[in-house]
Amino acid sequence: MLENVDLSLTVKNSEYKESMKILEVKLGALQRKACELKISVIFVFEGWHASGMGEDVNNFILPLDPRGYDFYSMKLECCEDALKPFLLHFWTLAPIRGKIAIFDRSWYSRAIIKHFRKEKSREKLGRCLEEINWLERQLSDDGYLILKFFLHISKKEQEDRLKEIKKKGIPLILNECEKNNGKENGKEFDFIYEYDEYLPIVEKVLEKTDVPYAPWTIVEANDEKFATLKIITTAAQVIEKYIEQETLTPRQQTIEYLDTSISKLPKLNGSILDKVDLSKTIIYKEYEDSKKLFQQKLEILQYELFRRKRFMIIVFEGWDAAGKGGDIHRLVEELDTRLYRVVPVGPPNDTEKAHQYLWRFCERMPEAGHITIFDRSWYGRVLVESVEGLCSEVEWRRAYREINELENIITGTGTIILKFWLQIDKDTQLERFKDRQNDPDKSWKITVDDWRNRSKWNEYRIAVVEMLQRTSTKNAQWTVVESDDKYISRIKILKTVTEALEKELGE
Amino acid sequence: MLENVDLSLTVKNSEYKESMKILEVKLGALQRKACELKISVIFVFEGWHASGMGEDVNNFILPLDPRGYDFYSMKLECCEDALKPFLLHFWTLAPIRGKIAIFDRSWYSRAIIKHFRKEKSREKLGRCLEEINWLERQLSDDGYLILKFFLHISKKEQEDRLKEIKKKGIPLILNECEKNNGKENGKEFDFIYEYDEYLPIVEKVLEKTDVPYAPWTIVEANDEKFATLKIITTAAQVIEKYIEQETLTPRQQTIEYLDTSISKLPKLNGSILDKVDLSKTIIYKEYEDSKKLFQQKLEILQYELFRRKRFMIIVFEGWDAAGKGGDIHRLVEELDTRLYRVVPVGPPNDTEKAHQYLWRFCERMPEAGHITIFDRSWYGRVLVESVEGLCSEVEWRRAYREINELENIITGTGTIILKFWLQIDKDTQLERFKDRQNDPDKSWKITVDDWRNRSKWNEYRIAVVEMLQRTSTKNAQWTVVESDDKYISRIKILKTVTEALEKELGE
Repeated sequence: MLENVDLSLTVKNSEYKESMKILEVKLGALQRKACELKISVIFVFEGWHASGMGEDVNNFILPLDPRGYDFYSMKLECCEDALKPFLLHFWTLAPIRGKIAIFDRSWYSRAIIKHFRKEKSREKLGRCLEEINWLERQLSDDGYLILKFFLHISKKEQEDRLKEIKKKGIPLILNECEKNNGKENGKEFDFIYEYDEYLPIVEKVLEKTDVPYAPWTIVEANDEKFATLKIITTAAQVIEKYIEQETLTPRQQTIEYLDTSISKLPKLNGSILDKVDLSKTIIYKEYEDSKKLFQQKLEILQYELFRRKRFMIIVFEGWDAAGKGGDIHRLVEELDTRLYRVVPVGPPNDTEKAHQYLWRFCERMPEAGHITIFDRSWYGRVLVESVEGLCSEVEWRRAYREINELENIITGTGTIILKFWLQIDKDTQLERFKDRQNDPDKSWKITVDDWRNRSKWNEYRIAVVEMLQRTSTKNAQWTVVESDDKYISRIKILKTVTEALEKELGE
Repeated sequence: MLENVDLSLTVKNSEYKESMKILEVKLGALQRKACELKISVIFVFEGWHASGMGEDVNNFILPLDPRGYDFYSMKLECCEDALKPFLLHFWTLAPIRGKIAIFDRSWYSRAIIKHFRKEKSREKLGRCLEEINWLERQLSDDGYLILKFFLHISKKEQEDRLKEIKKKGIPLILNECEKNNGKENGKEFDFIYEYDEYLPIVEKVLEKTDVPYAPWTIVEANDEKFATLKIITTAAQVIEKYIEQETLTPRQQTIEYLDTSISKLPKLNGSILDKVDLSKTIIYKEYEDSKKLFQQKLEILQYELFRRKRFMIIVFEGWDAAGKGGDIHRLVEELDTRLYRVVPVGPPNDTEKAHQYLWRFCERMPEAGHITIFDRSWYGRVLVESVEGLCSEVEWRRAYREINELENIITGTGTIILKFWLQIDKDTQLERFKDRQNDPDKSWKITVDDWRNRSKWNEYRIAVVEMLQRTSTKNAQWTVVESDDKYISRIKILKTVTEALEKELGE
């Protein structure tokens, strides 16, 4: 993509000033209109070092209303960052509806630094670019407008500018983390000067990620004024077009989803849930002994997980009153409070609602060495939100794929994911609802929501079966837990977690 | 406080089980009631290493509803943390109304590690304890209930337990940051074994911070069961008492504020604002030259600030249409986008409203080496919130002291704070309002709020004068900027910022 770029393009000073006057007003007006329509825009700036990105970006943001955008300047990876898949970090920076986010270097620079400069692995870089495409498509499908600029200069121009910058003593890369200091005595940044080595990599990155829902604009940046004008003009045009679309026709999905008709779903009889044997029981003594045994094993395994800096995510989903709380209680009873965290998931708050639905989970993922237990999870999208019509059919059908992508990104960094579906029969639920209502210490647990959900048992059942089928992937299997007998349920969970850890940590 | 503690206290197993059954139900019920009344509770756990804190804390949180609390496990300082006053980090962790926050080691451990173990400075530790008292008092005044537990064991008991823990291979301190790894070959943690050296320090910390609004409870922890029971019993009693207070009488301030009667305020004539000469003007050529000169100086100074890892905060307050936006525009025009950030401050959102008013500013403070510009700020508390009655008189009168404390904490770590009040006269404002309304590109800038504020000019004027007097402190002075002439205003700001940087960075 960088071959036929005409780097000799320039613009006269008088022409620049006149155009800017018009464009600044236009851009401001478009920003207010986009905000009004709740359109979120993401601007990504990438480019060669010394391409003048700083100045161009500043020229771009000065006409904007600061209340309407967030600005992020990419930093080198710090110790804490290294503990999570870095894409999750950027995911959490997606703006709320109606706001703009501007990235002065972004996931692209991070991907290149991490996988090419440090690890010298084209394969890992390729995989990472794929994940980036997933993220950008998910955001685009959720209504985000994504614009990416690459500031291109020639090798000769870069050499000249680097000399100038060195003379002035301006730091090329801001180094905030002590880890990066000294360790390699400044050699860390030699790559800045390796134009020829990086050219094919940059080409590859641009090609692989130049997608219709998030296209690249190559900016000829030998002349700063020309670059500024091109950036602002492009941004204004694209936003204007998007606003027109929004106000004329309903939003179109970037991707078509096939095989979505109800008729293609598996028949209810013969589904995975029918094969669950809910009649199993266990005597108390046996339960107590098994519980103690597995809890002791887990107590030791958690420290091994920590030493190896592995992550673990445990998802609990199930019918109301299936015993999630009690199961989680026994699971964590003997764990180290510093190493596990229980994340209860309820309806999203206003800020969460103003983002794509996976946003709120990204920052709650465990750090390396830790266990995070989700009491309900992102699967709410295809359960309650789908059944209660809180999102559209297109949205929840798309969610299977989106969820698989997110879990794929997470397991890609060595995270162990276990997903439990707690299965009870309808009579057992009724019995437990009544017990709770009659016990003054527990009656607060029963709400009208529970009864409403119960009345939609069959709809939920269809949703559950589809979820279990579509989101059981190689590294993120569902385990259906027979939970009519609470002891059976607790032991199965303790056993599954223990065995998964033993297998992964390979005793 | 640790002298007369009877560490021989124990409890029988049967007694423990029976008491726990009652206490668990009680604690759960109290949690729900506190949540209903929007009471926020902060539990701090500190104690000797190997005091069994992990187990006790786990026993304490298991009966609680996970939806109602946040749990924080203190970590060693990582590179990124080192860039900000650490107390701000904990400030941002204060729970929203109706929620509980539990700290498994807290600002106390951080203070001791930072100022005593690393810097060996009793003086800095003392100063830090004072700051901690400020934070806790501010939260208490805002309605937070703060409970602090210190788990005490004898030296003999600690020695025995440490042997046991070492045998089992359990990590005493979780080390997540690479920076802490290897560097001192594990010697970092030797302090864990230095009971005798730390005893007087712990004593001092407990004494200095055992305040009525956030008292310490010493927990005899040689016996784990006894410790658990004491913690839960104390917690239940204190919450119950607080709930009773809340439901019986209006909340009482922990501190009395004197000299607050209106009569003691300075008379309007002779106030600082009257001495401002708004008639100054400057010719365009002179303005352009000065602007260029200061912008060039600032461009160089910002990198020096970055190299020295100093912080800079610039606060803009002023009458509507006084020209804040334009002033900020010229200030940042030639700055490096990676080094500055403009934070526009509007009305708080729901989450922000559910916290103490300073909460939302804590995480927006600059990192070391960076400049943060606040377009309006925490001074809204004593301006718009005070004049419009959005908070009570007690609250905004208390705010002068609270703001001075926060700024004191910030400047204590080498931050340069500049505060600008943009002064215009009433006629100039009217002229500018009309100009804006008549310009189609600017009419969106004028809202009914602006006219409403204008109608309360005199009330605002009183508030401004009081603010300027009460919050001009040694290291955080206000600069009143004559802004009837926009050029004068811009140059004064550029000049003040440049000179402050030159002075602080000592050319």
